[in-house]
Amino acid sequence: MTKSDYASSGVDIDAGNRAVDLMKDAVKSTYTPAVLAGIGSFGGLFDASLLKEMKSPVLVASTDGVGTKVKLASSVGRFRGIGHDIVNHCINDILVQGARPLFFMDYFATSKLNPQQTAEVVTGIAEACRESGVALLGGETAEMPGVYQAGEFDVAGTIVGVLEKDAILPRTDLKAGDVLIGLKSSGPHTNGYSLIRKIFAEADLESVIPELNGSLSDALLASHRSYFPVLHPLLSEIKALAHITGGGFTENIPRILPDNLDAKIQIGTWPVSALWNLIQQGGAVDAAEMYRVFNMGIGMIAIVDKGSASKIQGLIKEPTFVIGELISGSKKVQLI
Amino acid sequence: MTKSDYASSGVDIDAGNRAVDLMKDAVKSTYTPAVLAGIGSFGGLFDASLLKEMKSPVLVASTDGVGTKVKLASSVGRFRGIGHDIVNHCINDILVQGARPLFFMDYFATSKLNPQQTAEVVTGIAEACRESGVALLGGETAEMPGVYQAGEFDVAGTIVGVLEKDAILPRTDLKAGDVLIGLKSSGPHTNGYSLIRKIFAEADLESVIPELNGSLSDALLASHRSYFPVLHPLLSEIKALAHITGGGFTENIPRILPDNLDAKIQIGTWPVSALWNLIQQGGAVDAAEMYRVFNMGIGMIAIVDKGSASKIQGLIKEPTFVIGELISGSKKVQLI
Repeated sequence: MTKSDYASSGVDIDAGNRAVDLMKDAVKSTYTPAVLAGIGSFGGLFDASLLKEMKSPVLVASTDGVGTKVKLASSVGRFRGIGHDIVNHCINDILVQGARPLFFMDYFATSKLNPQQTAEVVTGIAEACRESGVALLGGETAEMPGVYQAGEFDVAGTIVGVLEKDAILPRTDLKAGDVLIGLKSSGPHTNGYSLIRKIFAEADLESVIPELNGSLSDALLASHRSYFPVLHPLLSEIKALAHITGGGFTENIPRILPDNLDAKIQIGTWPVSALWNLIQQGGAVDAAEMYRVFNMGIGMIAIVDKGSASKIQGLIKEPTFVIGELISGSKKVQLI
Repeated sequence: MTKSDYASSGVDIDAGNRAVDLMKDAVKSTYTPAVLAGIGSFGGLFDASLLKEMKSPVLVASTDGVGTKVKLASSVGRFRGIGHDIVNHCINDILVQGARPLFFMDYFATSKLNPQQTAEVVTGIAEACRESGVALLGGETAEMPGVYQAGEFDVAGTIVGVLEKDAILPRTDLKAGDVLIGLKSSGPHTNGYSLIRKIFAEADLESVIPELNGSLSDALLASHRSYFPVLHPLLSEIKALAHITGGGFTENIPRILPDNLDAKIQIGTWPVSALWNLIQQGGAVDAAEMYRVFNMGIGMIAIVDKGSASKIQGLIKEPTFVIGELISGSKKVQLI
């Protein structure tokens, strides 16, 4: 009989400890004075005394993953951007409800723990947290031989934020005539990667494509951007926000519409970059399917009163596009 | 050229929607009056006005997975218990800091979404949340072809709880002579399953084993229990708690010890059930390794003042065991 120990069963407790050693400075760099206990504790402790100063505090939480963008990242050995992806995705998800993020929790799992690779992902997570003033309060790293395919990993995260109850978006005064302002995405963000990978399965990801001003992998792995810095200061002027994630325009915009309104979106009111044409042509994808799966260059949509649209566009310090308006309807998206 | 759509790339948006339909009643059954928005929202909204009534509120958060217990569950097609595992694991992790759980967020990912199987896991999550008064505030279901092995899934979760700042455990008055009270585990909980699966790779999991009063799969898949109901009412009497998870006795107890104390644990002071002997003998595992990987029948340890130990044992409505004491030392565990 051979003797068994945990390492021989495919799980290396010491590799986990090495990964923690490599990432802990990056994690600690995100700590705000509110962090009372972080890495190494059973749970992270976050001083919530600021909530006592609020009128009617509401906590907001969202959990997400980055989909099979992880597989594309593994295939080219670039891991740090995935950390930005998961954090910014989550920040945007609660921004659309009007929240400011407080802290983030990550989950990283793989078939066989590579401490450097794990630390690279978590360092990316820490960087994105730091950029938005979010504490990386805790997380879990798991080695799961036999669950993940060899060389693959998954990452998920949970963000917790806060807002005043009377500032929850969407507001209830959405009406026909309100204007949809689109903000640029930085790429496909974290959605549609199973389709993207299928379309580009035979492509050389590292060769430079002139229309993209870079390689396919640069364009496809561009990190999911955060809309928090540009939009949070303006939330009081905004009636509703839609984060265009999985389900594209078709499924995300209706989530914030009342039953009696449609969103009419005029295709062509914003520049659709070359990458989207490559995807659509490369896969012979129907136009309707493109808008059901991808953000098509618009990662966030703000719905504002028609009268204040141009003022708000002036306050957003980046290019924005009036892409449509609300009309009478039944909670659908009309792409025209 | 064949036309592409998202379903043909291995991701079925409609299967995701069917899974949500199947699980949504269970999820909603966990909602307390504090839940302002849950399933279907970008983020879950939780009314935190109770924190305004607190003296110095601290939020506690913990993220975890259940390890390769998921693989054992898949192999015998039993999914609901995994939901209890992840929730109770997280509840215990923040209980050791003195917290009461408020809400839970889940992450479920698999190679190919089976709506019934997904709903079964999430229904188990909802059941465990309901048992502890925790709102299942949100979550994410992901289909990741090419990342997970065929037929496999992973589940992770994040719990958020609250406590008063001056009630954080461990207390700072731990001293030599304090007594360690052990509470029974319900099985291996969520740790050591890669080793367990290796040891029992050739075993018939469904055959009844007389010493276990049931099948191996019953014993191995017994859900991770929650210690919240028995211990939360007694927290003011307890100096520290250690949740015996990955890393076993050897790594978890030192996490709550000050630098100048060791925990001396007397093996034989509690009954070690037949399952542990089967594991140790089946794998020819060293005794030291057993205590480094498994909970060995003790899933939670409370450290209390020697003078109040028997009173506290009397207040805990289940069998407990004095398993050791604190002695002068250097933050280590001595198993004798």
